[in-house]
Amino acid sequence: MREVAVIGIGQTKVDEHWDKSIRILAGEAALEALKDAGREFADAIYVGNMLSGVSSHQQHLGSLLADWIGLRYSEAVKVESACGSGGAAFRSAVTAVASGVVESALAVGVEKMTDSPGPEVTAALATAADADYEAGQGLSFVAINALIMRRYIYEYGWKHSDFADFSINAHANGVHNPFARFQDPVSESDYQRAPMIADPINLLDASPMGDGAAAALVVPLETIHPNGATVIQVAGSGSATDTIAVHSRKDPLWLSAAEKSVRQAYQQAGVGPDDIDVFELHDAFSIMAALSLEACGFAERGQGPRLALDGQILPAGRVPIATRGGLKARGHPVGATGMYQIVEVVQQLRGEAGGTQVPDARIGMAQNIGGSGSNIVTHILVRVR
Amino acid sequence: MREVAVIGIGQTKVDEHWDKSIRILAGEAALEALKDAGREFADAIYVGNMLSGVSSHQQHLGSLLADWIGLRYSEAVKVESACGSGGAAFRSAVTAVASGVVESALAVGVEKMTDSPGPEVTAALATAADADYEAGQGLSFVAINALIMRRYIYEYGWKHSDFADFSINAHANGVHNPFARFQDPVSESDYQRAPMIADPINLLDASPMGDGAAAALVVPLETIHPNGATVIQVAGSGSATDTIAVHSRKDPLWLSAAEKSVRQAYQQAGVGPDDIDVFELHDAFSIMAALSLEACGFAERGQGPRLALDGQILPAGRVPIATRGGLKARGHPVGATGMYQIVEVVQQLRGEAGGTQVPDARIGMAQNIGGSGSNIVTHILVRVR
Repeated sequence: MREVAVIGIGQTKVDEHWDKSIRILAGEAALEALKDAGREFADAIYVGNMLSGVSSHQQHLGSLLADWIGLRYSEAVKVESACGSGGAAFRSAVTAVASGVVESALAVGVEKMTDSPGPEVTAALATAADADYEAGQGLSFVAINALIMRRYIYEYGWKHSDFADFSINAHANGVHNPFARFQDPVSESDYQRAPMIADPINLLDASPMGDGAAAALVVPLETIHPNGATVIQVAGSGSATDTIAVHSRKDPLWLSAAEKSVRQAYQQAGVGPDDIDVFELHDAFSIMAALSLEACGFAERGQGPRLALDGQILPAGRVPIATRGGLKARGHPVGATGMYQIVEVVQQLRGEAGGTQVPDARIGMAQNIGGSGSNIVTHILVRVR
Repeated sequence: MREVAVIGIGQTKVDEHWDKSIRILAGEAALEALKDAGREFADAIYVGNMLSGVSSHQQHLGSLLADWIGLRYSEAVKVESACGSGGAAFRSAVTAVASGVVESALAVGVEKMTDSPGPEVTAALATAADADYEAGQGLSFVAINALIMRRYIYEYGWKHSDFADFSINAHANGVHNPFARFQDPVSESDYQRAPMIADPINLLDASPMGDGAAAALVVPLETIHPNGATVIQVAGSGSATDTIAVHSRKDPLWLSAAEKSVRQAYQQAGVGPDDIDVFELHDAFSIMAALSLEACGFAERGQGPRLALDGQILPAGRVPIATRGGLKARGHPVGATGMYQIVEVVQQLRGEAGGTQVPDARIGMAQNIGGSGSNIVTHILVRVR
């Protein structure tokens, strides 16, 4: 396989974009990525999206987007893996270019959620879980995560307030990201006073939904002219599944799919946890940030919150996470999130992360989770010059 | 890239499977394909599906299926390209194995349509078209195809009855396929008396919806032991898009995406139309069969119906199509259809097509269309020993 690189990125603000249809949102990010790369064309388009059939009465997003941005003969498909759709689309783009099937591929994540009433969105998000044995029993997606967090607190002896720093860090970083949905800091007392959603998950443990799109252009590394610009190689890519229902797992507090997918990515890139300068993880709920840090080798089992309490997740810490706000503050337009993570890692490696730049970041990782840990895609990006 | 082959196939009957959920249907086909291959494992699963989020309140089919069939750590995603989802999933599987990303991949197409009331299915199918500029104006999917057929009849001077043989051939072949939804022949007079759906498309011009699943296991050609069994290589694969809305095309009577995708597949396989022994095309409506034959080089522009009138599409003809019933008689469970086509081509090349076996078929082609020609995937399979 050929080595591949990201040479263009684009994103829209995560927001309530009531004035923009799904094709317009996706088109803005895609065209921005092409412009950033100085290209006008891509051979293939992989669109990560979860909910368009329900929320926009539109499937077939691949063809829709190819047509809309003027690439009407390019190959194009939609890739769906619930909240992990963006990362899955990026992996498809990387595979297609690495294999030689195409010479360039746009990966685009897009989601439009805020046009629909809240209960409809809650029902739609539950389609990420097991429809017959979880959602069908009345378990919403946040409720599943609440059960995991409750068990985690019980097993490992944490207090709810020990999770506050995940939220505080994400919001503090979002202040510096003009594309973030929330750009205001939150305090320890804000966290403690936040309304409960599904005990023990409160409003500041949970990421907000939103409308948004993010995109990246992938090409073979060997075709990039040495013109002095920074080059970001996709050095590792891993993907794995776990049971779709949490109750089927031997250990509901361990992300086996994260462990397997990150092992593939580490191995391919020839690096380990100590080498990662920045880690955009899937903090849909603060408990997921803790579990992801553990499965990827940054903390012992049950000790994820310790990294937050010790300030190790801050931009100047040992493993900076959610550096552009994360799902918590940048927002979580579900099928788009995985592509926001890629865009943000590229910003860090290029040194374009502004007020939350990780000093001299050279190796970055992005991990996107579909469902409650049932589909996990991990990518490692490296600045090679 | 490595050469790849199909070593196992599986399918369910296309029917009203009210007693089987989507995971059960998909699982039956997938396990059958593994069993047929003598394997118990696949590194990756690509599920082609269009409507599960609406019809089964279930997204995340990749994880769902991997879990259900006991491959819970395998990579797994859903690939969506409207009615072309099955072919797109097969292409993803072929690319993943050819590139070396995985050593084996299951491609599975599945759709469950008959649990929902008719008007809901009609609305859901319209999400394959342009939601804002076609469906939003009241154009159902069959209405779009009716406008194309009307224009074709006007431009090229055909009569409606000239299309009868597409339907008659498909139903005659379906008689011999135990997996076909319809296993009864239809006559010329049945065709002429069939109720009108969207003038000029009548009931026997249109394929029936249904529930069903079909699957194939793809592995590197070099890993197959020379044990005497027939080996079916995937020799060519092409994919291209056109505008999503038919009214945006310079010529609404020409399938540009079919032309482009078949050219890629011919070139890669080193063959041309004269070499194709069997062609499973996308006869969702009889007009689409005609347009597909033209775009793939089997008939002059506007002359597709001539092949049917002259008996050239029969199993003993020059270009046998719909040899197992096609979309028209085997049925069209939309996201599964592309995988049924692959399974049926493999049956022909293995000599397992029973009463409609094409004599000594060695090279077969499958073409799957998403929307009204806006996303077209073509595969060429060759019996290599």
